[in-house]
Amino acid sequence: MAEKITAIGLEGIVVAESDLSLVDGKNGHLVYRGHWARDLAIHHTFEEVAHLLWYGHLPNEEELAALQAKMAEARTLPEHVKQALDAIPADVDAMSALRSGVSLLAESSHGWPPTMEQVISLTAKIPTIVAYRYARQQGRQPLPPRADLGHTANYLYMAKGKEPNPAHVRALDAYLILTQEHGMNASTFAARVVASTRSDLVSAVTAGIGALKGPLHGGAPSEVTEMMEAIGTKENAEPWIRQALEKGERLMGFGHRVYKTMDPRATALSVVASELSKDDPWFELATHVEQVALKLLREYKPGRQLNTNVEFYAAAVMRAVGLPDELFTPTFAVSRTVGWCAHVLEQAANNRIIRPESTYTGSMPV
Amino acid sequence: MAEKITAIGLEGIVVAESDLSLVDGKNGHLVYRGHWARDLAIHHTFEEVAHLLWYGHLPNEEELAALQAKMAEARTLPEHVKQALDAIPADVDAMSALRSGVSLLAESSHGWPPTMEQVISLTAKIPTIVAYRYARQQGRQPLPPRADLGHTANYLYMAKGKEPNPAHVRALDAYLILTQEHGMNASTFAARVVASTRSDLVSAVTAGIGALKGPLHGGAPSEVTEMMEAIGTKENAEPWIRQALEKGERLMGFGHRVYKTMDPRATALSVVASELSKDDPWFELATHVEQVALKLLREYKPGRQLNTNVEFYAAAVMRAVGLPDELFTPTFAVSRTVGWCAHVLEQAANNRIIRPESTYTGSMPV
Repeated sequence: MAEKITAIGLEGIVVAESDLSLVDGKNGHLVYRGHWARDLAIHHTFEEVAHLLWYGHLPNEEELAALQAKMAEARTLPEHVKQALDAIPADVDAMSALRSGVSLLAESSHGWPPTMEQVISLTAKIPTIVAYRYARQQGRQPLPPRADLGHTANYLYMAKGKEPNPAHVRALDAYLILTQEHGMNASTFAARVVASTRSDLVSAVTAGIGALKGPLHGGAPSEVTEMMEAIGTKENAEPWIRQALEKGERLMGFGHRVYKTMDPRATALSVVASELSKDDPWFELATHVEQVALKLLREYKPGRQLNTNVEFYAAAVMRAVGLPDELFTPTFAVSRTVGWCAHVLEQAANNRIIRPESTYTGSMPV
Repeated sequence: MAEKITAIGLEGIVVAESDLSLVDGKNGHLVYRGHWARDLAIHHTFEEVAHLLWYGHLPNEEELAALQAKMAEARTLPEHVKQALDAIPADVDAMSALRSGVSLLAESSHGWPPTMEQVISLTAKIPTIVAYRYARQQGRQPLPPRADLGHTANYLYMAKGKEPNPAHVRALDAYLILTQEHGMNASTFAARVVASTRSDLVSAVTAGIGALKGPLHGGAPSEVTEMMEAIGTKENAEPWIRQALEKGERLMGFGHRVYKTMDPRATALSVVASELSKDDPWFELATHVEQVALKLLREYKPGRQLNTNVEFYAAAVMRAVGLPDELFTPTFAVSRTVGWCAHVLEQAANNRIIRPESTYTGSMPV
């Protein structure tokens, strides 16, 4: 047997060659299949970028219309999924409810290999599950999906229970595009491990949701809004942040494990979000806090390269478009499902079971 | 950055040190925390071995009584889980139903780190989910769990809808003990990847079920019974197997990726199962087929070390105790949940997020 390599956490271990994305933290680059994610977020829509990730190219007019139609048609939840969502106890968190709702989408026709039809159907239904459960939690009658709206607009419409503002749709669409795909993160990897046994798409995406639920991955985006609420006013930003840094506390929304320069997703979101900020005092506060924080981070942690990360702008965008903290991670799942599905298709196209080893450190029988 | 290592499939990559089990394929050894799995299967019960894997030692009388009582008490499903299981379309497979049932066990109190109480509660409910759904599929009213029966006896009671035969309980218990744990297989790894993000136990076990559902991992145990049914009689065994080998077909139930000598689980199961065989013509046929197959495999594939594997005996035991093919993989999940939970506890005790890398093979933006 060849010599074994120990790599707890698998850092530096390449488990797949992938055409889907390049995450280059040193240079602050994020590429989806030959396109800058930044440009895609500014110039394209959720469905166009999903088409790019799934089919390998941006759609022409006809292809886009076909995908939009298929997704719009697939949004409605089967009755048994709605019944199960209705019966989940009210205090169960939104990610657990989403994981169960997705698991319940299993159909007897699913199996190996996963198909594009399954990918489209599953991705189309995720916002419906999130919004359905949220409406119930709010004591509202869930709204049926509207086929005349795009994926992002319809999500916002169902989640908020009213016609969405076009500037909000635009900002949320950019956020969702920027988080559709991000290389071999823990949830994507979990989805590929599950798919590698020749299991089905629903099983793989259910595993992805379970992994994204963990705060080391899906984050705790509410921490940014909590910080903003604690700061409260522009005048309070500098003293508050200075005190936090003096006490050695971590500033939420700054710094990223991979990106050592500006997080390219944050850059793109700041462009799109700036269109929103004129009318939104909270967003104006966020922009001010960002400037103060970056200045003070340079002062207190020189050379540490702590820049605004995607969570900061995610919180700003989601707050601005009116999505509550409890929907931050489920909304991340709405977008990342596109990447999970693309990875499952890629895994299936050239499958090899993913099965590492462990070293036994227990005793031997006497 | 250190040099990267490419390991598609992660073969030969050690991702964890584990006190839980040693799988030594060269010598045909399977050790659970310092005990031969073979001996545990012959001399102990499901609950005793679960205690060993979870707490690190076999229980004394008091500890065993406490675990048995907690598990017996935790078997009942919440109403919303039963409602959801009732509403799943009849043609959805048993593993998908189990995955959804487990996902629906999420509680607001769950979180990080996972607790022994959660492990006990979840493990106790898995057989109830499997049996509940199966009873519905059979058009029977599901039986409530019986606290006076052990874990295995109660599973068999609920699944078959009648008082279980003690010899059947004994044989099934041995099978379940032998499949509780098996190192870093794909489902266990999926569970650990999910847990490593600080997600919860239900998310991790849901991922494990999703991975086990894949035929490359959970197998297709019905293939063994289909082969047995095709053979039909002892007289037909030799001509049937000879013809299959002449045609280059693979014999189901023989050969294992890891075990190059006798699969130790098969050895132990053959001991326990032999008690059953006197009264079971199907089991007698299986024993005969095994002998013929081993003889002919030596003749047709000399030097290949193709021995009876656990799937062969699993099929024999499950068929003998009256569990249908569709419950083979769910029954595997009933036992493997013990190992998944032990691994999640171990991961949580010394956590590091599991996050490998991928190489981008797409083009760069122009």
